[in-house]
Amino acid sequence: MRAHVTKKILSEGLGLLERVIPSRSSNPLLTSLKVEATEAGLTLSGTNLEIDLSCFVPAEVQNPQNFVIPAHLFAQIVRSLGGELVELELTGNELAVRAGGSNFKLQTGDFEAYPPLSFPTQADVSLDAGELSRAFGSVRYAASNEAFQAVFRGIKLEHRGETARVVASDGYRVAIRDFPASGDGKNLIVPARSADELIRVLKDGEARFTYGEGMLTVTTDRVRMNLKLLDGDFPDYERVIPKDIRLQVTLPATALKDAVNRVAVLADKNANNRVEFQVSQGKLLLAAEGDYGRAQDTLDVVQGGTEPAMSLAFNARHVLDALGPIEGDAELLFSGSTSPAIFRASGGGGYMAVMVTLRV
Amino acid sequence: MRAHVTKKILSEGLGLLERVIPSRSSNPLLTSLKVEATEAGLTLSGTNLEIDLSCFVPAEVQNPQNFVIPAHLFAQIVRSLGGELVELELTGNELAVRAGGSNFKLQTGDFEAYPPLSFPTQADVSLDAGELSRAFGSVRYAASNEAFQAVFRGIKLEHRGETARVVASDGYRVAIRDFPASGDGKNLIVPARSADELIRVLKDGEARFTYGEGMLTVTTDRVRMNLKLLDGDFPDYERVIPKDIRLQVTLPATALKDAVNRVAVLADKNANNRVEFQVSQGKLLLAAEGDYGRAQDTLDVVQGGTEPAMSLAFNARHVLDALGPIEGDAELLFSGSTSPAIFRASGGGGYMAVMVTLRV
Repeated sequence: MRAHVTKKILSEGLGLLERVIPSRSSNPLLTSLKVEATEAGLTLSGTNLEIDLSCFVPAEVQNPQNFVIPAHLFAQIVRSLGGELVELELTGNELAVRAGGSNFKLQTGDFEAYPPLSFPTQADVSLDAGELSRAFGSVRYAASNEAFQAVFRGIKLEHRGETARVVASDGYRVAIRDFPASGDGKNLIVPARSADELIRVLKDGEARFTYGEGMLTVTTDRVRMNLKLLDGDFPDYERVIPKDIRLQVTLPATALKDAVNRVAVLADKNANNRVEFQVSQGKLLLAAEGDYGRAQDTLDVVQGGTEPAMSLAFNARHVLDALGPIEGDAELLFSGSTSPAIFRASGGGGYMAVMVTLRV
Repeated sequence: MRAHVTKKILSEGLGLLERVIPSRSSNPLLTSLKVEATEAGLTLSGTNLEIDLSCFVPAEVQNPQNFVIPAHLFAQIVRSLGGELVELELTGNELAVRAGGSNFKLQTGDFEAYPPLSFPTQADVSLDAGELSRAFGSVRYAASNEAFQAVFRGIKLEHRGETARVVASDGYRVAIRDFPASGDGKNLIVPARSADELIRVLKDGEARFTYGEGMLTVTTDRVRMNLKLLDGDFPDYERVIPKDIRLQVTLPATALKDAVNRVAVLADKNANNRVEFQVSQGKLLLAAEGDYGRAQDTLDVVQGGTEPAMSLAFNARHVLDALGPIEGDAELLFSGSTSPAIFRASGGGGYMAVMVTLRV
């Protein structure tokens, strides 16, 4: 087999697969990249047993043949090459990789021994890839890395008629993003670490979903991905969203981020990075206190609601996370010192963070 | 005391001191910043017992008073402040730090208990700060981090009449840089980690040297630094510099760096990252071989000298280090397969790397 392929396109494909394929494994074959060739190009694939990923790279191929090759080494070599075009030539168990004055000879692995990866092709439902990726990206922070409840390590995707919703929670906060979607899809829970790969892989165009047994296949024009779903019931997060808003403030999200970052320097790491929010007379006073001293910051806000003043306390880290996806003005909705609070973008956009307060 | 100071200038000074002052220490006072105030400004200083550093920050000061304050916390707060001007106010054991809507109150430490730091003011000799910093920066890589001979953990500075020279070695390679200097200074060995701080601190203008007992004080317009010197005899490195050059090649340094980086992907990490250099007929062939395959790269070179061809082998890591300070064309001077080789910039500039070859 001999193939000619653009270095840039090959590198991009390898870049996606490198993140999924483990660099070490008790089964060394899993560290390999599987390459299936046709005259139109090369299909690169790999798996970490949680996610299977496959990516098509257009190429000019003569006498197409399949092979497996150490994935990370191959990717590193391709990246290091000079010039724009890469030549691959397979002779027996040796793959030659050539470009400019460079000539690499790599030992290939046992193609037959590599686990079969199959990607269903019919689509059950279709979503906008960019919207889905942004939605996962907005709520990812709230998923837990170490929750006692396994579902908290996942992101729930709900189909709600004209919109879809992603939700993540670690029990102390909930992040929600709604986005336009049509079609009658299933509700499911994607492991947060698989969502990370989806965020990376999904750019624009369509993301076509195929539902399997405890599994989801996502197909775009560039890639196909199988991912294992989380089993279990996601808690009823809607009941923690406060309905009775008694005080509301609006201010630029960056001003609030900067101020929380400042006062958090002195916040007590052993007391949940506690920062107090005191609202009254169009001012938001932030205050934190720790072993080395105390910090205050005063911000002008647009204040509304029936309550003239309120004091609440939050984990500074959680506040900064919640503000992350908000651009422009942030709206903070408070229903009482001991009730959860809502942080959302003033202009809408479907994102909302709900956070428990710390005891005042 | 009340002081007004520009945030940018204060942050820059704190940035330098933060690198020297330890963030943890069995003696917590050493994690403090010492601040001495006059009506003209604040002198910030700190020590890690290897290096004492002091930096003057111009400020408007009323009722000057001295104090010590947790260094890293103070630096972090100042960096996080909005606005351009910072107000400091000392009341009893509390320092207020204010800017815009921010108001921090920090507990100060025990000024009297802080170890005295003294910086001599008369200068024995003066060097160009920029030249000295560049010279240390060029040879730093060759100093050892774990040498059995303590002097290999240092950089030697030699005064040679019209020039000065810095030399570093780990026993396998020598890096040398000559630069213009006048005055009759002493030869001395600066610990490489102290040289790192000198590189960071020295910008332009004069670096004035004051010699002490096993100690050097370097003074510039911005900073004063005491550093402990290494004791011992630096080996006679000049005898390893080959005199009888039998083959010489010239090529762009970046082309050689890229090619060595490429073939090194397959070089055997357990065999010194061995890369072979084969020169003949105006070509340099690089070759490496490891568990996964083999790599070759061919480069056009301008070839000179009496020998028509030569094969040598080097540690790829060492070759890349040696090429680091070379811009434009590199000149490689070979005197035989088993003799050390010289890498230097084709246009001069005073830098030279000497490297042992690996067995062919």
